[in-house]
Amino acid sequence: MTATDPVQLTADLIRCPSVTPEEGGALSLLQTLLEGAGFVCTRVDRGGIANLFARWGDKGHAKSFGFNGHTDVVPVGDLAAWSADPFGAEIRDGILYGRGATDMKSGVAAFAAAAVDFVRDTPPDGALVLAITGDEEGDAVDGTVALLDWMETEGERMSVCLVGEPTCPSEMGEMIKIGRRGSMNAWFTVTGRQGHAAYPHRALNPMPAMARLMDRLASHPLDEGTAHFDASTLAVVTIDTGNPATNVIPAQTRGTVNIRFNDAHTGAGLSDWLTAEAAKLDAEFGTTTEVAIKISGESFLTPPGPLSDLVSGAVEAETGRRPELSTTGGTSDARFVKDHCPVVEFGLVGKTMHQIDESVPVEQIRQLKAIYTRILRDYFTV
Amino acid sequence: MTATDPVQLTADLIRCPSVTPEEGGALSLLQTLLEGAGFVCTRVDRGGIANLFARWGDKGHAKSFGFNGHTDVVPVGDLAAWSADPFGAEIRDGILYGRGATDMKSGVAAFAAAAVDFVRDTPPDGALVLAITGDEEGDAVDGTVALLDWMETEGERMSVCLVGEPTCPSEMGEMIKIGRRGSMNAWFTVTGRQGHAAYPHRALNPMPAMARLMDRLASHPLDEGTAHFDASTLAVVTIDTGNPATNVIPAQTRGTVNIRFNDAHTGAGLSDWLTAEAAKLDAEFGTTTEVAIKISGESFLTPPGPLSDLVSGAVEAETGRRPELSTTGGTSDARFVKDHCPVVEFGLVGKTMHQIDESVPVEQIRQLKAIYTRILRDYFTV
Ligand SMILES: [Zn+2]
Ligand SMILES: [Zn+2]
Repeated sequence: MTATDPVQLTADLIRCPSVTPEEGGALSLLQTLLEGAGFVCTRVDRGGIANLFARWGDKGHAKSFGFNGHTDVVPVGDLAAWSADPFGAEIRDGILYGRGATDMKSGVAAFAAAAVDFVRDTPPDGALVLAITGDEEGDAVDGTVALLDWMETEGERMSVCLVGEPTCPSEMGEMIKIGRRGSMNAWFTVTGRQGHAAYPHRALNPMPAMARLMDRLASHPLDEGTAHFDASTLAVVTIDTGNPATNVIPAQTRGTVNIRFNDAHTGAGLSDWLTAEAAKLDAEFGTTTEVAIKISGESFLTPPGPLSDLVSGAVEAETGRRPELSTTGGTSDARFVKDHCPVVEFGLVGKTMHQIDESVPVEQIRQLKAIYTRILRDYFTV
Repeated sequence: MTATDPVQLTADLIRCPSVTPEEGGALSLLQTLLEGAGFVCTRVDRGGIANLFARWGDKGHAKSFGFNGHTDVVPVGDLAAWSADPFGAEIRDGILYGRGATDMKSGVAAFAAAAVDFVRDTPPDGALVLAITGDEEGDAVDGTVALLDWMETEGERMSVCLVGEPTCPSEMGEMIKIGRRGSMNAWFTVTGRQGHAAYPHRALNPMPAMARLMDRLASHPLDEGTAHFDASTLAVVTIDTGNPATNVIPAQTRGTVNIRFNDAHTGAGLSDWLTAEAAKLDAEFGTTTEVAIKISGESFLTPPGPLSDLVSGAVEAETGRRPELSTTGGTSDARFVKDHCPVVEFGLVGKTMHQIDESVPVEQIRQLKAIYTRILRDYFTV
């Protein structure tokens, strides 16, 4: 049989209008392909979100290679600004255009094509698992989490997992992600007592407390980086009061900070710190500060080892580039997978993701399939 | 002839709906009364604002007693909440109700009644001047300032001036104002460079600079008070950014401070200080801060002396209370008059000014006329 064409598969997926939370036919298309290749497929839908679980080989096999990715895409934005139909999958001068071309229908297609051909040509002693969600770009509460919950219940497993998100800043093969910083937001509401600016002693101005709190938080170095992480960062993103009268001392003001934290911290530890700093300020100023905190994800790290060696080796063999092991950037569903098994992320160049005219050189999709194929071969022949 | 009734005159003035900038018939009514008593009257209107200048006696006389006040009033607010028609001048249980009952149609009426009776009964060797404006509660650019400009041009003068604003916090005769603190606003716009919160090193966050600037300004003691003034105060009244996205570092943020300053400072000196503090922050953070400043009024003081002795003596003789010489509170038109001649302020109890059911005991208006009469007598018999 001929090899499965990952470019054709990417194009077919782009033609499925799967803007979160729409399934758009993308998971059905993959299910048909995978079932045709002997994968057992289960739709794990939850809360209006479609997810696809597919396994080739024995359930719970000790050597189960997992792949995680998503078929949902962000909205097209200003349609008139596109030079191609975002759901048309037009190829022009060797470049494939469309929403999801890099993030991450190409990654899903490259892995699915590699998996289908691999189990047919060299059936391994082990299992291959694809956990593909339709909700990564949205709230992500009924996406990869739903798949992992279901797998736990069913006794399904992955021994290791590769997330196929685009990871390379500008050249193919540059970067593997072996971890991600955690992310959290804190909303501070400082309350005092309103009054006239001519009689400040009769009022309790919350503004100086807010200013000092934000200055202290912003000037406090959280750490200087760790073995595999950049320094954690805290950004004051807004302070708002909405007091239009210059002769009035306001009763209340609000401020928000966003923290990106490495493995020197936990969301709980940082929450305690933020709450304690607010309490200190209240003690100094007599104000009352409420703190609301949302932890979007804890930091995690899959320390350099067998899994990153496996992926790095395959990337270097196919591209001639030894990838950097990085923990930079935003969050991904790897933050959920890491509680299940060791996880790393590798995919193609993400430059155009979420943008107008999102696109990918078709050659890069073929190269990605080759890398994924080599990873599978190396994993099962060790 | 019978004495002029200041209660009736206050009631007549309240029935003139003179909400700034409407004249409402109030100044015409006073003009008729004063011309009937031999005062030379001139309407000094400017910029859509009505003002009344009235003089008895020789122009430019070295012994010219001046009175300054206003007939305009603030809006009634929630009409349904009033227990009386705000322009009805109803008297209930000895209390006169209406907008302007304390601020300051009663003060104008008491002085006009005193002046009319005084020149008739005991014509002095000197002059009496009334400079009454229809724009004290508004922008005040074409009010008392217009009267003073006109007087300068015409060679009209006051040797001393009494402003009839309500000055007593709760009991008649408690307080004379011999000065006022200055007031100014400064608007700071701190600009950095927008970016993603996950990559703060690529952005330049204006928030920490704003927070530190506001903390520094708010924690800097301007002074500890002077001989006749409380300490100057600075209130941060608002900080606003309007950034709804917690993963975005904003490009710009705005903050406003209001300063009430005593005679240890000038508006220019404080402007220099604010601008220098902003520049220091910019040097520390690399931000660009614009500062816009508006000085509403400089501080001024009429040091205790003949004028305050004259007023205090009359107040004590009529009320049995020795008034405190104070410089507290907001601003008044005395800030303009002080460039023309020595000025102090004395009026009745201001508790209900600008409020729903603004009111005054009629007995207080009669007492105020008696005090003003005694001031005139003592001034001209020295
Ligand atoms: Zn993605
Ligand atoms: Zn007033």
